[in-house]
Amino acid sequence: MQFDFPNPFDFPKIKFPSLIKSSKTAGLPPGQLVHLGEKLTDKSLVELISYNDKEFREASSGKSNEITEGLSAETVNWINIDGLHNVDLIREVGEHFAVNSLILEDILNSDQRPKVEEYEEHLFFTLKTLNALNTESIIYEQMSFVLGKNYILSFQEKEGDLFEGMRNRLKNDPNSKARKKHADYLFYRFIDTIVDSYFLILENIAERIELLEDEVFVNPTKRTLQKIQQLKKELIFLRKSVYPVREAVSKISKGEYHFIKKETIQYFNDVYDHTIQVIETMETYRDLTTSLMDMYMTSVSNKMNEVMKVLTIIATIFIPLTFIAGIYGMNFEYMPELQWKYGYAAVWGLMLTTLMIMVIYFKRKKWF
Amino acid sequence: MQFDFPNPFDFPKIKFPSLIKSSKTAGLPPGQLVHLGEKLTDKSLVELISYNDKEFREASSGKSNEITEGLSAETVNWINIDGLHNVDLIREVGEHFAVNSLILEDILNSDQRPKVEEYEEHLFFTLKTLNALNTESIIYEQMSFVLGKNYILSFQEKEGDLFEGMRNRLKNDPNSKARKKHADYLFYRFIDTIVDSYFLILENIAERIELLEDEVFVNPTKRTLQKIQQLKKELIFLRKSVYPVREAVSKISKGEYHFIKKETIQYFNDVYDHTIQVIETMETYRDLTTSLMDMYMTSVSNKMNEVMKVLTIIATIFIPLTFIAGIYGMNFEYMPELQWKYGYAAVWGLMLTTLMIMVIYFKRKKWF
Amino acid sequence: MQFDFPNPFDFPKIKFPSLIKSSKTAGLPPGQLVHLGEKLTDKSLVELISYNDKEFREASSGKSNEITEGLSAETVNWINIDGLHNVDLIREVGEHFAVNSLILEDILNSDQRPKVEEYEEHLFFTLKTLNALNTESIIYEQMSFVLGKNYILSFQEKEGDLFEGMRNRLKNDPNSKARKKHADYLFYRFIDTIVDSYFLILENIAERIELLEDEVFVNPTKRTLQKIQQLKKELIFLRKSVYPVREAVSKISKGEYHFIKKETIQYFNDVYDHTIQVIETMETYRDLTTSLMDMYMTSVSNKMNEVMKVLTIIATIFIPLTFIAGIYGMNFEYMPELQWKYGYAAVWGLMLTTLMIMVIYFKRKKWF
Amino acid sequence: MQFDFPNPFDFPKIKFPSLIKSSKTAGLPPGQLVHLGEKLTDKSLVELISYNDKEFREASSGKSNEITEGLSAETVNWINIDGLHNVDLIREVGEHFAVNSLILEDILNSDQRPKVEEYEEHLFFTLKTLNALNTESIIYEQMSFVLGKNYILSFQEKEGDLFEGMRNRLKNDPNSKARKKHADYLFYRFIDTIVDSYFLILENIAERIELLEDEVFVNPTKRTLQKIQQLKKELIFLRKSVYPVREAVSKISKGEYHFIKKETIQYFNDVYDHTIQVIETMETYRDLTTSLMDMYMTSVSNKMNEVMKVLTIIATIFIPLTFIAGIYGMNFEYMPELQWKYGYAAVWGLMLTTLMIMVIYFKRKKWF
Amino acid sequence: MQFDFPNPFDFPKIKFPSLIKSSKTAGLPPGQLVHLGEKLTDKSLVELISYNDKEFREASSGKSNEITEGLSAETVNWINIDGLHNVDLIREVGEHFAVNSLILEDILNSDQRPKVEEYEEHLFFTLKTLNALNTESIIYEQMSFVLGKNYILSFQEKEGDLFEGMRNRLKNDPNSKARKKHADYLFYRFIDTIVDSYFLILENIAERIELLEDEVFVNPTKRTLQKIQQLKKELIFLRKSVYPVREAVSKISKGEYHFIKKETIQYFNDVYDHTIQVIETMETYRDLTTSLMDMYMTSVSNKMNEVMKVLTIIATIFIPLTFIAGIYGMNFEYMPELQWKYGYAAVWGLMLTTLMIMVIYFKRKKWF
Repeated sequence: MQFDFPNPFDFPKIKFPSLIKSSKTAGLPPGQLVHLGEKLTDKSLVELISYNDKEFREASSGKSNEITEGLSAETVNWINIDGLHNVDLIREVGEHFAVNSLILEDILNSDQRPKVEEYEEHLFFTLKTLNALNTESIIYEQMSFVLGKNYILSFQEKEGDLFEGMRNRLKNDPNSKARKKHADYLFYRFIDTIVDSYFLILENIAERIELLEDEVFVNPTKRTLQKIQQLKKELIFLRKSVYPVREAVSKISKGEYHFIKKETIQYFNDVYDHTIQVIETMETYRDLTTSLMDMYMTSVSNKMNEVMKVLTIIATIFIPLTFIAGIYGMNFEYMPELQWKYGYAAVWGLMLTTLMIMVIYFKRKKWF
Repeated sequence: MQFDFPNPFDFPKIKFPSLIKSSKTAGLPPGQLVHLGEKLTDKSLVELISYNDKEFREASSGKSNEITEGLSAETVNWINIDGLHNVDLIREVGEHFAVNSLILEDILNSDQRPKVEEYEEHLFFTLKTLNALNTESIIYEQMSFVLGKNYILSFQEKEGDLFEGMRNRLKNDPNSKARKKHADYLFYRFIDTIVDSYFLILENIAERIELLEDEVFVNPTKRTLQKIQQLKKELIFLRKSVYPVREAVSKISKGEYHFIKKETIQYFNDVYDHTIQVIETMETYRDLTTSLMDMYMTSVSNKMNEVMKVLTIIATIFIPLTFIAGIYGMNFEYMPELQWKYGYAAVWGLMLTTLMIMVIYFKRKKWF
Repeated sequence: MQFDFPNPFDFPKIKFPSLIKSSKTAGLPPGQLVHLGEKLTDKSLVELISYNDKEFREASSGKSNEITEGLSAETVNWINIDGLHNVDLIREVGEHFAVNSLILEDILNSDQRPKVEEYEEHLFFTLKTLNALNTESIIYEQMSFVLGKNYILSFQEKEGDLFEGMRNRLKNDPNSKARKKHADYLFYRFIDTIVDSYFLILENIAERIELLEDEVFVNPTKRTLQKIQQLKKELIFLRKSVYPVREAVSKISKGEYHFIKKETIQYFNDVYDHTIQVIETMETYRDLTTSLMDMYMTSVSNKMNEVMKVLTIIATIFIPLTFIAGIYGMNFEYMPELQWKYGYAAVWGLMLTTLMIMVIYFKRKKWF
Repeated sequence: MQFDFPNPFDFPKIKFPSLIKSSKTAGLPPGQLVHLGEKLTDKSLVELISYNDKEFREASSGKSNEITEGLSAETVNWINIDGLHNVDLIREVGEHFAVNSLILEDILNSDQRPKVEEYEEHLFFTLKTLNALNTESIIYEQMSFVLGKNYILSFQEKEGDLFEGMRNRLKNDPNSKARKKHADYLFYRFIDTIVDSYFLILENIAERIELLEDEVFVNPTKRTLQKIQQLKKELIFLRKSVYPVREAVSKISKGEYHFIKKETIQYFNDVYDHTIQVIETMETYRDLTTSLMDMYMTSVSNKMNEVMKVLTIIATIFIPLTFIAGIYGMNFEYMPELQWKYGYAAVWGLMLTTLMIMVIYFKRKKWF
Repeated sequence: MQFDFPNPFDFPKIKFPSLIKSSKTAGLPPGQLVHLGEKLTDKSLVELISYNDKEFREASSGKSNEITEGLSAETVNWINIDGLHNVDLIREVGEHFAVNSLILEDILNSDQRPKVEEYEEHLFFTLKTLNALNTESIIYEQMSFVLGKNYILSFQEKEGDLFEGMRNRLKNDPNSKARKKHADYLFYRFIDTIVDSYFLILENIAERIELLEDEVFVNPTKRTLQKIQQLKKELIFLRKSVYPVREAVSKISKGEYHFIKKETIQYFNDVYDHTIQVIETMETYRDLTTSLMDMYMTSVSNKMNEVMKVLTIIATIFIPLTFIAGIYGMNFEYMPELQWKYGYAAVWGLMLTTLMIMVIYFKRKKWF
C-alpha cells in the first residue's frame, strides 16, 4: 500500500526577496551605493542607441566613458546598462548625467517597490519585468528608467530584455513613429512593452488555474493542495509588483510631470487602461484560487463520503449474516434447527432474504 | 456499484478571452490596426439608416464608400458595421469620418474594457452585449459606438442585434420620439437597450441559483459542485463587463460630454439607475452563490453523518450479539450452559434483551 | 428507520421580483406608462384628506377628477391613490398635477429602487413598506410620494397602510402639530412612520435568529439549514430595500431640496438617525446569521464525533472479545485449554479483564 | 454513557434592547416624552454639585425645583438626575434649563445611538456606560450630558456611577485642576472617565478569550462553542456602542463646537486617541474570536481523527485474527491442519506474526 | 498508545499589554506622571552626545542636571534617557527643556499608540522598537523622541538600542553627513534605523511561515495549530505597532512640521516608502497565515481520509471472508459440503477469489 506523501524537500519554495536585502542596509546612512540583490550575471555592459529621423547609431562597451562622451544633442540617446552588480559603472554613468544619489540607490536595490519620481533634471521610473519560463515559477527582474532631456538611461539586472523588437524597428524603419518623436515617446514604448508582457504572465496563470480545476474535480491529491498554495503565493507577490505600477502610470497620465509632453500623455492613458485590466484580471484569479481551495476541501469530503459508503455497505450486509452463521455455530446440545433436514437450506434462505432487504434499502437511499 | 465521477472532459470550460488577444499585440507599436478576438462570422456588412421627422432611408452594402458617400446633413445617420474581422472596411469607415486611430484600435480589440471617451470630433463608447441562449453559458460580444455631430457609427462582431425593435419603430412610426430627436437620443436608446438586456441575463442566473439550491438540499452530487463553480466564474466575468459600464454611464449623466445635449442627460440618469440596479442584483447573486457553496459542504457533511449513523446502528446491534453467539461456539469440554435443556432458548432471550436495550438507546438519542 | 428528508416542494422560495418586470420593458422607449409588478388588488381608489388648523375634509372616489377638482390652496391636500394596476387613473392624476412622466413611470414600477428626486414642480420619493405578517416571509410593497406646493400625492399598491393612526389624529385633534404645519411636515410624518415600521421587521428577524440559535445547538436538522439560508436571503433583500432609503433621507437632511422647509429638516435628521440604526442592526443580524451557518456546521461535526465515539467504543470492546471466543471455537485436536476443568471460567476471566482495561482506557480519554 | 448536551435553557441569551423600544414609539408623532427602556430602579433623584476655586456645595432631592432654583452663576453647577423612568422630573428639569424637546426625547430613549449634537443653548452628548460585573455579560447603561453655559446636566438610568472618585477630589481638593476650570472641563472629565472604563471591559474580554483558547485546545465541548458564540455577540454589541463615540469625540476634538473652549480641546484629542485605541483593540479581539471558531472546528476534527485512529487500529488488528480463528472453527471433515500436533501452536504463531506486521505498519505511519 | 496532547501550560501566551496599564490610570485626572508598563531595568541613565562638524563630546550620568546644564547652542545635542521607571528623572529633564506635560505622560505610557505631534517648542514622536531574539516571540519596547531646536531627547525603557553603529560613526568620522547637519537629520536617522529594523522582524516571521508550511504538509499536529494561532496573534499585534508609524511618517514627509527642514523631508519620503513596504509585506504574511489555517484543516481531513481508507480496505476484505468461515462453522447435521473431500480446499479457493475481486476493486478506485 503506497500513499502519496510528497517529499517535503521538493516543495517549490518562494524566496522572500524583499527581506534579504533590507537587513543588509539596515543601519547604513543614506547615499551609500551598495548593490542589494542577487548577482545574476558576471558581465556588465553599456549600450547606446542614438537616433533621429535621419540617422541611427549603435555602440556598446564595458566602459561607460566610451559611450557617454560625445553624445549628440540632436538625437534621442538611449543608454542601456546591463548588470547592477557593477556599482562603479553605475556611479560613473550617474555622475556623468548628474543623476541624484537617491535615484542611484533605488536603481541598485533589486527589491525597490515600483514608483515614479520627478527630480529637477530627471524623471525616474522603476518597476519589475516578469518572466514565466515554465509553469512553476515567475522570475522577477528589476528595471529602472531615468528620463532626461534628450536621453533615457535604462538599468537592468542582466542582459536580454523585452525590447529586441523595438531595437530592430528603430534600426530598420526610418519612417517608424518612434524615429520622429522625442525621448518621452521612447520612454512610453518601454513602459507599454513591459505592461503588455504582464498579460503573458496572466495567461500562464490562467492555464494553471484550469489545470488545477480539473485536478481538483477528478483526482485531488496532497500535491494538488501544494500547487494551489503555490499559486496563491505567486498571486500575492505578483500583486505587490503590479499594483504600484498602476499608481505610477496614473500619475503620469494625469500630466503631473513636465518631462512627458502633452501629445505623449494620451498614450499613457492607454497604458493606464492596460494596468487596470491586468489588475482586474489578477483579482479575478485570486477569487478563483480561493474557491479552488474551497473546492479541494469539498472534493476531499466527497471522497471520504464515498469511502464511508463502501465500508458501510459491506459492513451492513455482512455483519448480520455473520451473526446468523454464528448462531448455528453454537454448541448447545438441544438446538432443534440443527437436526432439521432442511435447516441448512433454510439458513441460506434466511441469509439471502436479509441480503435482499439490505440491497433494496441501499438502492432506496441511492447509495449505489 | 457505480459512482458519479463525471467525465472530466465535459466540464464546461470558460475561455479567458482577455488573455488571448493581449499577448498578440504585446510589443507592437500603437496605431497598428489588428483584429484581436475570434472571427465570429465570414460576412461583413455596412448598413445605413438615415431619418428625420419627415423622411426615412435604409441601405446596406459590403463596401463602405457606397454607404458613406452622400450622407445628408439634415438627417440623423446611423451607420452600422457588422464583422470586426474586416479590418480594411473599418479603416475606410474610420478614415471617412476622421475617427482617431486609438478609437479604431479599441473597436477592433474584442477584449476592450467598457469605457467612454471624448475626442475632439467624437464621443466613443464601447461595451459588451450579453446573450444567454441556454442555461449553461453567456455569450459576450463587443459593441462600440462612435457618436459624431449628426451620425452614429456602431460596430458589432457579427450580424444580429438587440435593435430590431428600434429599427421597426423608426421606420414605421414617423411620430415616434426618436424621429424628432437628434443623434444623441438615438445613442441613448442604444445604451438603454443594452443595459436593459442585462436584466435578462440576471433572470437566467436567478433561475439557475434556485435550481441549484434545490439540488444542494435534495441530492448534492459532484456535478452540483461543478455547476456552482461554473456559476461563480460567470458572475466574476459578468462583473468585469458590467462594472465599467456604470462608470461610463455615470460620467455621461454628470454632463461631462458636450456631445450629449442637456435634455438627453435626464434619460441617462435613468440608465444610470438601471446599471446600479444590475450591479446590486449581481452582488446579491454573488452572495447567494457563495452561500450555496457553504450549503453544499454542509449538505455533504449531513449525508456523511447519516451514513455513519446507519453503520453505527448496525455494528452496535450485531457486534455484541455475534460475540454472544461466539461464546457458545467455543469447544470447552466443561461448559455447563451447553447441557442445559433451555440453554439455547435462554441465549435467544439474552440476545433479544440486548437488542431491545440497544434500540431504546438509539431511540433516546433520536438516531432513528 | 426514518430520516428527515424534507419535501423539496415545501422549500419556501423567494421570488426575485426585480427580474420579472425588467425584462417586460426591455426595449420599450421611455415615457410609456406600463404597470410593472403583480396586481395585488382589483379595486383602485383615490382618497383626499384636506386640512389646516381650522378645517378638515375627507373624500374618496374611484374617479380621479371627482377628487382633484376644486382643491383649496388654503389647505394641505393629501391625495392617496390605492392600486397601481389602474394605469389610466394614475395618468389622470399625474396630468392634473403636471407630474413629470419619468416620475409616473417610476411610480408604476413595483421594483423601483428607493430614491428621492427633485423636479421643478415636485419632490419625488419612492421606497418600500415592509410587512412581516408571520415569521416565514416579509411582504414588500412599493410606496411613492410626490410632494408639491401644498399637496402630497401618495401611491400604494393596494388598500390598507401604516397611516391609520395619523389619519385619526389629524381628524380628531385640531391642535395636533401636523394641523398647524405645511405639506412638507406631513411628508416627514410619512417617511418617519415607514422607517419606524422597519424596526418591527428587525424585531421579527431577531426572534427568528434566537429560535434558530437554540435549534442549532440542541437539534440541528436539514430543515434548520434551510431556515438559515432563508433568513440569509431575506436579509440580503431587506438590505437592498433599506440602504437606498438612508441615502435618500441623508440628501433631504442636508437641506438639498427647497421643498423641505428649514424647520422640517431637523426632523429629517432624526429620521436619518433611525435609518442608520436600522442599517447597523441589520448588519449585526447579517453577522449573526453568518455565524449561525458556521455553528450549524460545527454542530453537525460534533454530532458526527459523538456517533463515531459510540461506534468506536462498541467495536473496540467487542471485537477483541469476539476474537477470544473465536480462538476457542477452533476445532484443533490438540488444544490443551479445552480440556482444563476451569478453562471456560478462565476464558470468562480473560474477557472481563480485557473489558475492564478497555473501559479504563476510554474513561482516561474522557470518551464517556 | 453520558454526553454533554447542555440544558438549552441555560444558554445565556442576549437581549436585543434596541428592538423593544423602537416598536413602542412607531407611529407616535415627535416631541412626546416617553421613557423607552427597562425601568432599572424605583427611586429617582436630583443631585447638585456646585463649585468654583473657592467654594463647594452639595445637595440632593427627589424634587427638581428644590435643586434647580437659586443656582449661582459664579459656580460650575453639575446637576445629576438618576432614574429615567421619572418622565415628569426630567421634563421639569428640561423646562427649567430650556432644553430642546428633541434632546429630552433622546435622553429618555435607552437605546439611543451615541452622538453629540449642538443646539443653540446646549451641547448634547449621549453614550453608554459599560459594566462587566462578572465574566458572563456586560451591562449597558445609557448616560446623557447636557452642557450649558455654566452647568452640566447628567442623566443616568439608575443610581451609582463611575464618578465617585471625581466627586471626592472636587470636594476635598480645592487646588485640583477641575476646581479652577469651567464646565467644559468637567464635561471632558466625564467623557474621559467613561472612555477609560471601556478598557476594563476589554480587559475582561481579553481574559475570556485566553480562557477559551485554552479550552479549545485542551477540551473543546459544546459549551465552549456556546461561549465563543456569546463572546462574538457581545463584541458585535460592544462595537455598536463604541464606534459612534469615536465619531462624536472626533467632532469635538476638531473644535466644531463653541461650547468647548480651545484649551479643553487638547484634552479631547487625548480622549480621541483613547477611543481609537479601544476600537483597534476591539477589532483585534473580533479577529481573535473568529479564529477561535476556526480553531474549535479544527480541534473537533482533530479529536475525530483520533477516535477514528483508535477504531481503525483495533479493527485492523483483530478482524484478520478473528478471520484466522474462523477458518479453524470450520467443521470440514477433511482439514489436515486440525490433526497436526502443533497445529494449534502454529496458528498462534501465525496470529502473532500478523499482529507484529500490523503494529509495525502503524508505527511506520506514526499512528501511535 | 500515546497521543500528542501538549501540556496546556506550555502554550505560549501573549500578554495583552495595552490593557494592564489602561485600567491603572482609569479615573485619574490628566497631567499626573505615572509610569505605565513593566519595569524592565533597575538602572536609569542620562547620556549626552554633543557634536558639530568640528567637535564631539560624550557624557553620561545618573543625574539629569549634570548633563543638561551647560549645553552648547553651537552643537547638536542628543540626550538619551534609559529607564522609564525613574519618573523623577524624566520630570527633571522634561522641566529643563520645558516639555509639555502631555508629552511626558505619553512618554511614560509604555502602551502609547505610535504618533507624531507638534507642540510650540517641540516635535514629539513615539513608536515601538521590535526585537525578535528567538523564533518564539517579539519583544516590544517603547521609544520616544522629543525634537527641539538644537537638541533631541530620546527615551527608552532600558539600556541597549539600535543606535550603536550611529554613535560610532558620529564619533569616529568627522566627515560623516550627520556631523554636518542639524538635529532634524539626526532625528531622521533614528526613525530610519527603527523602521529598517522592522524588516528583520518580517524576515523572522517569513522563516516561521515557511517552517509551518512544511509542518502542515508533512506532519500536522496539535502543536502546529497552536503555532499558527500564535503567529496570527503576533501579526495582529505587529500591525497595531506599525500602522500608526506609517501615518506619522506620512505627516512628516508632507512637510507639515516646521521642525523638519525642507532638505530633510526628502529623506522622510524614503522612510515613508519603507513603511509602505513593511506594511504590504505584513499584509502578505497575514494572508499566508490565514491560508496556513485552511491548509491545516485540509491536511487533517486528508489524513482522516487515509485512516478511513485503511479501515475500509481491511474491513471490506476480511468481513466477507469471516462470513464464509462462519458458514462452515455451523453445526447443521446435514451440510453436504462438509463431507466433500475437497470442501476445505474449495472454501480456500472461494476466499482467495473474493480477495482478488476486492483487491481489483480497490485498485480501480485507486485507493492504494
